[in-house]
Amino acid sequence: MTIELGNERRKAVVLVSGGLDSATVLALAREEGFDCYAISFLYGQRHVAELNAARRIARELGAREHREFPIDLGAFGGSALTDHTIDVPTERSDEIPITYVPARNTVFLSLALGWAEVLAARDLFIGANAVDYSGYPDCRPAFIEAFETLANVATAMGVEGERVGVHAPLIHWTKAEIIERGIDLGVDYAMTVSCYQADEEGRACGVCDSCVIRREGFETAGVPDPTRYR
Amino acid sequence: MTIELGNERRKAVVLVSGGLDSATVLALAREEGFDCYAISFLYGQRHVAELNAARRIARELGAREHREFPIDLGAFGGSALTDHTIDVPTERSDEIPITYVPARNTVFLSLALGWAEVLAARDLFIGANAVDYSGYPDCRPAFIEAFETLANVATAMGVEGERVGVHAPLIHWTKAEIIERGIDLGVDYAMTVSCYQADEEGRACGVCDSCVIRREGFETAGVPDPTRYR
Repeated sequence: MTIELGNERRKAVVLVSGGLDSATVLALAREEGFDCYAISFLYGQRHVAELNAARRIARELGAREHREFPIDLGAFGGSALTDHTIDVPTERSDEIPITYVPARNTVFLSLALGWAEVLAARDLFIGANAVDYSGYPDCRPAFIEAFETLANVATAMGVEGERVGVHAPLIHWTKAEIIERGIDLGVDYAMTVSCYQADEEGRACGVCDSCVIRREGFETAGVPDPTRYR
Repeated sequence: MTIELGNERRKAVVLVSGGLDSATVLALAREEGFDCYAISFLYGQRHVAELNAARRIARELGAREHREFPIDLGAFGGSALTDHTIDVPTERSDEIPITYVPARNTVFLSLALGWAEVLAARDLFIGANAVDYSGYPDCRPAFIEAFETLANVATAMGVEGERVGVHAPLIHWTKAEIIERGIDLGVDYAMTVSCYQADEEGRACGVCDSCVIRREGFETAGVPDPTRYR
């Protein structure tokens, strides 16, 4: 990937949730030489602890700037992550989980695209993963490709011939592969929070989908699990 | 278009800004038999008067529900519509205007899509127009088509085989044609506000791009201009 633009480093907007995947993506984008602009969303989720984690990740992994954007997806309801009357499930199933937030990644990438256009950044990075989150429509390669196509017709920079790239480098990786790559890049996963119902100090429940997938990832990678459980 | 679903009327989410175009689109969607769910965005724009207009339009044109969604696009800057340090231009040019808000329609349609998914509405309506707003990348047919493709891979309903439709019925119409159709449908354009810098009572400046295009539309249609100028 060519990332030099004259003497300037190319800018990238990186979605940083505070979880394990997006921390790894930020480290990858920086490794590729991008000047990284991190963005996190306050979207009415249960796991506000993730946002404290996102701040620390952005700082520790060298983001040039970190924006926290409030967006009340909970106003629409329909998900266990934003509607506190729906329980977070502790069993995995083959159907689209109730933790799916309608159009979440579409909304997040759209906002990231708006900021990218103002920054003159032509690259977006997202930690979407189709292996562990196969039930989420907006974590699949077809979604990323469709969004990239959209980004190139939706923006002034796209219309003016700048190619906008939407990168989901983890999309085909297992959780163990993500962890192994992150460890190589020096990511301290103790600062990340993945739990759907972490407490205010970021301590994990250990039983939700996200906790189970994360713990299995550390086991498979043969890396001690740094997660603080409550 | 088939809009019956058993004995239920099909639901549509309609973007309503308070302007002339989206009021016409709401009337069109209702005419086609949809149960309309109107959504307006508070996005840090100068023309807050449009939102008062949107409320009235949603009520008068029979929307089943009207949501006002706050979304601070002004946080990113880069547009005369959200950055009050940039003047609204009074001359038209062939370039992308400074009133263009980066990724605006992408963000708005994404949020509308999230609500649609929760409502089980498979149709979105937007008043995008490629004739009068040819300088805006996200008012072109290629944008609408790319968003429709995205909507069908981004959502649970799309993945489960429900076809999501993104409709921009005005996209190839002139302003005069829009006005003529709206008048046929009984739209009272006195309640709409198009001006980029309307005052708090919704009175128009008469000199911005949007005012000029609107006034020419009424002239060409041979309809008395009901706009209140200050």
